[in-house]
Amino acid sequence: MPVGTQATVKGLTQRDLSEDLGVRLLLANTYHLYLRPGHELIRKMGGLHRFMSWPHAILTDSGGYQVFSLSGLREIDEHGVLFRSHLDGELHTFTPQSTVDVQIAFGSDILMVLDECTAYPVSHEYARESMHRTVGWARQACARLRHLAKEISTRHALFPIVQGSMFRDLRRECAAALRDLDADGYAIGGLSVGEPRPLSMEMVEATEDLLPRARPRYAMGVGMPEELAEYVARGVDMMDCVLPSRNARNGCLFTSEGRLIIKHARYRDDERPIDERCQCYTCTRYSRAYLRHLFLSGEILYVVLATRHNVRRYLDIMSEIRQAILSGSFPEYLRCVRAVSEDAG
Amino acid sequence: MPVGTQATVKGLTQRDLSEDLGVRLLLANTYHLYLRPGHELIRKMGGLHRFMSWPHAILTDSGGYQVFSLSGLREIDEHGVLFRSHLDGELHTFTPQSTVDVQIAFGSDILMVLDECTAYPVSHEYARESMHRTVGWARQACARLRHLAKEISTRHALFPIVQGSMFRDLRRECAAALRDLDADGYAIGGLSVGEPRPLSMEMVEATEDLLPRARPRYAMGVGMPEELAEYVARGVDMMDCVLPSRNARNGCLFTSEGRLIIKHARYRDDERPIDERCQCYTCTRYSRAYLRHLFLSGEILYVVLATRHNVRRYLDIMSEIRQAILSGSFPEYLRCVRAVSEDAG
Repeated sequence: MPVGTQATVKGLTQRDLSEDLGVRLLLANTYHLYLRPGHELIRKMGGLHRFMSWPHAILTDSGGYQVFSLSGLREIDEHGVLFRSHLDGELHTFTPQSTVDVQIAFGSDILMVLDECTAYPVSHEYARESMHRTVGWARQACARLRHLAKEISTRHALFPIVQGSMFRDLRRECAAALRDLDADGYAIGGLSVGEPRPLSMEMVEATEDLLPRARPRYAMGVGMPEELAEYVARGVDMMDCVLPSRNARNGCLFTSEGRLIIKHARYRDDERPIDERCQCYTCTRYSRAYLRHLFLSGEILYVVLATRHNVRRYLDIMSEIRQAILSGSFPEYLRCVRAVSEDAG
Repeated sequence: MPVGTQATVKGLTQRDLSEDLGVRLLLANTYHLYLRPGHELIRKMGGLHRFMSWPHAILTDSGGYQVFSLSGLREIDEHGVLFRSHLDGELHTFTPQSTVDVQIAFGSDILMVLDECTAYPVSHEYARESMHRTVGWARQACARLRHLAKEISTRHALFPIVQGSMFRDLRRECAAALRDLDADGYAIGGLSVGEPRPLSMEMVEATEDLLPRARPRYAMGVGMPEELAEYVARGVDMMDCVLPSRNARNGCLFTSEGRLIIKHARYRDDERPIDERCQCYTCTRYSRAYLRHLFLSGEILYVVLATRHNVRRYLDIMSEIRQAILSGSFPEYLRCVRAVSEDAG
């Protein structure tokens, strides 16, 4: 899923996303949109799909991660979290019920339950206490959606989030408890918080046999291009990450042959596209030399073209993975990805 | 002509410009592209059209205006101008011959001769001396292109530039001298340098009967939306201006009913498009409320969508003008524009 934090994937129009890139599911951020422009305004405007003119599906996160990473002073207890807006310092409260209400105001297709995303590293004791709180919140959020479902005609999925920091026993205890909620899908949170990558993989593996196989599993906030197949190999169906768009803006382009840092002098007169195997609008029309010129000139068109390519690269990788699974060659595909990745490393 | 200073109209892809907006002629800046990425690189990349992936025509200015407005220390004599780059302070020289060479390296379809664009106000004495220099440079530039034309297979138009500050006699003397060059077209420069608008109009009128009517006339760096018809009424065929794109970025949108300042609170929950009569991609898909949200959030997509609308507005005005001329109703059209403009004023 491309990330559309503020109800926009930075630099891409909704037509670029839908028609050129074939995106069918976007992520938007509950925390950001709750603060600005506000969920009541979005509700009044006919929901997030209509507000941002997006004809396909939207997943919104719970806001938990942003509360813990962006906001100032916060107090947390079993009822929810009190936090200061990073925009104006005002105090706000998120509860498991209120974040469901906010996401229903958005009209999100897939909602996330409020969770506590612990820092890394954290003590087993705190991780356990926090995980239990997240499980309790998931129960309350599910109850809230069941209650609301009686009043609204639209259908919405709600995913609880597996937490437990980097402790295998806590992850398993959490997944087992959440499984009882019989949710539409399950998210795996608390990854990409600074831990070494083998540990992230281990934490995904920890609950592989516990989460229901017939429901989608969503690893939140991952990963690098070469990691996507690793997560899929561990049972993950969905991922979101700001990397393709953020790295594009910073001048790092992903290609089928690795990373390309566009500012490097070697691309000054390079007539080739970013990736000769890529069929995106950028690669079929523009040279590395032109993109480098736009990047060095600080031109907006650079962001537009680079983001379009990087998002396409991620979608192409996922498409390759799906194809490999369908044709029974995924183990071989994974071996190739690992070999290339080790060569590059 | 939309303005593509650095070989890009800020925020718009070449496909947006060509297919969505129907643009067939873009302006690019000789001064900027000479400094970065450099005309020799652009020549090596196959010329500006290929470098920026633009399939239609390109007009490049002479660099004169930028030398006088952007660069530091400069010395001017009859041979040309010595100036410091605003990027790194390095010294460069432009001569009437060298700016033709640079624009030929770009492969521009329409080249401008090097001119001195005087500040406003300036003495009659200085304006006269400067105008004579500009006429001399135009002769040298034309001679240079005739010389080069023997060696190159492509065809290029070269426009001399009428100067003379705000002095009617100097403008007429300049136009009469330039007419003898039998050029492909004529530009009217030195406008929009801080003078009151009636004076700009007077200066265009001053040479109306002197410039050959069968050749295009290009008023450089103008104008506001309500002024376009005024220039056309004075014989102008071509204009360029950064206003549609720059104002878009600053939050000022042009509509068929006047200006719209997108940050205003009244648009907070306004579901209407920027302009209900506009058929651009932005107006057919997005609300004022969404655009305001993007603007306040500092999102790149705001620039993309707002620029697309404002450029379309300018193109629509020019299209209305052409239609009015063809149907014989231009005088009436001009009266309407003036009435609306006076109401707004």
